[in-house]
Amino acid sequence: MRRLREYGSAMTTVTCVGLAVLDLVFGVDARPDRGRKTFADSMTVIGGGPAANASVAVARLDGNARFLGRLGDDVIGDLIIDDFAKWGVDASGVRRIRSIPSPVSSIVVEADGERTIVNHSDPMLFAPEDIIVADDLVGSDAVLGDLLWPTGAISAMRAARAIGIPGVLDFDETPRGPIDLILTAPTHIVFSAPALASVSGDLDPGKGLEIVRSRTDSWVAVTLGSDGVLWLDEADDLRTTPAFDVDAIDTLGAGDVFHGAFALGLAETRPIEQVIRRASAVAALKCTRFGGRAGIPCAEEVDEFLSSRSAGQ
Amino acid sequence: MRRLREYGSAMTTVTCVGLAVLDLVFGVDARPDRGRKTFADSMTVIGGGPAANASVAVARLDGNARFLGRLGDDVIGDLIIDDFAKWGVDASGVRRIRSIPSPVSSIVVEADGERTIVNHSDPMLFAPEDIIVADDLVGSDAVLGDLLWPTGAISAMRAARAIGIPGVLDFDETPRGPIDLILTAPTHIVFSAPALASVSGDLDPGKGLEIVRSRTDSWVAVTLGSDGVLWLDEADDLRTTPAFDVDAIDTLGAGDVFHGAFALGLAETRPIEQVIRRASAVAALKCTRFGGRAGIPCAEEVDEFLSSRSAGQ
Repeated sequence: MRRLREYGSAMTTVTCVGLAVLDLVFGVDARPDRGRKTFADSMTVIGGGPAANASVAVARLDGNARFLGRLGDDVIGDLIIDDFAKWGVDASGVRRIRSIPSPVSSIVVEADGERTIVNHSDPMLFAPEDIIVADDLVGSDAVLGDLLWPTGAISAMRAARAIGIPGVLDFDETPRGPIDLILTAPTHIVFSAPALASVSGDLDPGKGLEIVRSRTDSWVAVTLGSDGVLWLDEADDLRTTPAFDVDAIDTLGAGDVFHGAFALGLAETRPIEQVIRRASAVAALKCTRFGGRAGIPCAEEVDEFLSSRSAGQ
Repeated sequence: MRRLREYGSAMTTVTCVGLAVLDLVFGVDARPDRGRKTFADSMTVIGGGPAANASVAVARLDGNARFLGRLGDDVIGDLIIDDFAKWGVDASGVRRIRSIPSPVSSIVVEADGERTIVNHSDPMLFAPEDIIVADDLVGSDAVLGDLLWPTGAISAMRAARAIGIPGVLDFDETPRGPIDLILTAPTHIVFSAPALASVSGDLDPGKGLEIVRSRTDSWVAVTLGSDGVLWLDEADDLRTTPAFDVDAIDTLGAGDVFHGAFALGLAETRPIEQVIRRASAVAALKCTRFGGRAGIPCAEEVDEFLSSRSAGQ
């Protein structure tokens, strides 16, 4: 069972389960011509992946962050592990698989901000026989999973339920497996709007939430970007937490950061309204800054931002 | 002065000076949609760069291969150095520059073979104050340079002249510096057709060669792909060495491999007709095989190929 503690205590541990990837981000003027060679103005090597980015957000927000996933036993994998260390995320539980390449993306960002991504993730890296069990989660106060490693995330959700801690699913992909198995494993599901529409068959997010709610006892929500977060309360009434009004200049990873802050808030046993509002603030601040993980705010910045916005949004 | 030796003796050393780069090659069905995420079927990490590929060809052809260039003191640079070691190229003289990223390319190859390349090479990596001097070339029997590191290549050509060994320039870029400085430094210049047209101002390769020949005492040639190699002999008469007729399935790096074999042939003091014919055979064999450096033939395969084609081309 969870230990009781102060909000934001350094003892709070969130384990993130999913995909970690290495991103090579090339900055170019305009879209490269097909069949030609284009010289980029800049190139940055950064770590990426939904649960991986979320774990960095947890660390930035003074939580103990752990990442569990599968990587190849190659130099790309070494770089990903090095980046976790840089951000203070414990990646010692990552499973390294021999003779399988680690996931890598080439991201070409044009001057107007348009991003074109080519990702390679070897299917063998996400073999279904490798699962997360309760022993993997010892000391965790909450678990977050993404569906890019489906069996990892789902088994982690089940293990979380078994040991009585929140299991949060970042539901941003349309998975191939049996959907009810996925819907019933987590204690909390945060959908993206396209994923919710796909799963529920209804384009209206409110109706979509009600449809999926009828198929699970999980708490359910959907993130709608600048339209905020829609969720169902204990009485199954539809609630909206508005987004903060900021000048967004870089939305990359904002969703991942939201999920990390959300899981940390639950781990800290904050009330749900506060959990959502705080996660929204973290995502909003992230959007006001360039540069991936370097743009994730720290706990102090979030507290200041929330105080300054306490009068309204 | 050069030592006399048998053709193809393992004592023959070629130093290649220029750009080394890490290529991430993604295999995709069709051109990725702008602003979207595409999942690649395959991804391969390989070393690239004109002089770097040439040095691997020298090693494959039983020459002692050395590579001299500038790389960042980062993991990308480590991977490039590891790849040289794998192919038996001595890269111990590579200069590692702190706080500057090593060159890297993302290459997206579509099912029909079309390649779209985005390269990043930090201009600071090719700072003009770093030059190659005679001491860097001790033990070399020939030097090859590419213009992606212009001051490196040109200073290497001058040092080669100073110690009395051939200095071969792979002239495949339109350089920014004073052109006559570049034309007079090498003992041998091998142009690409577009570079020759740009430098000479004449689209006819034969006329182009005559124009550049009037500005240098270097031996000059231009490679024309399946149309062979055009060159000027000692009497300044135009000569053609036809290309070998093969079923080309992968032409990537064929030019680089030609230059490496050409420099090795000069280092082995072969007659010029034989040097060109042999380098053409190496490039032709390379084109019949998939897979970058793995497709470069060894000396024995080249000898067999040349015997089999001795009756004609």
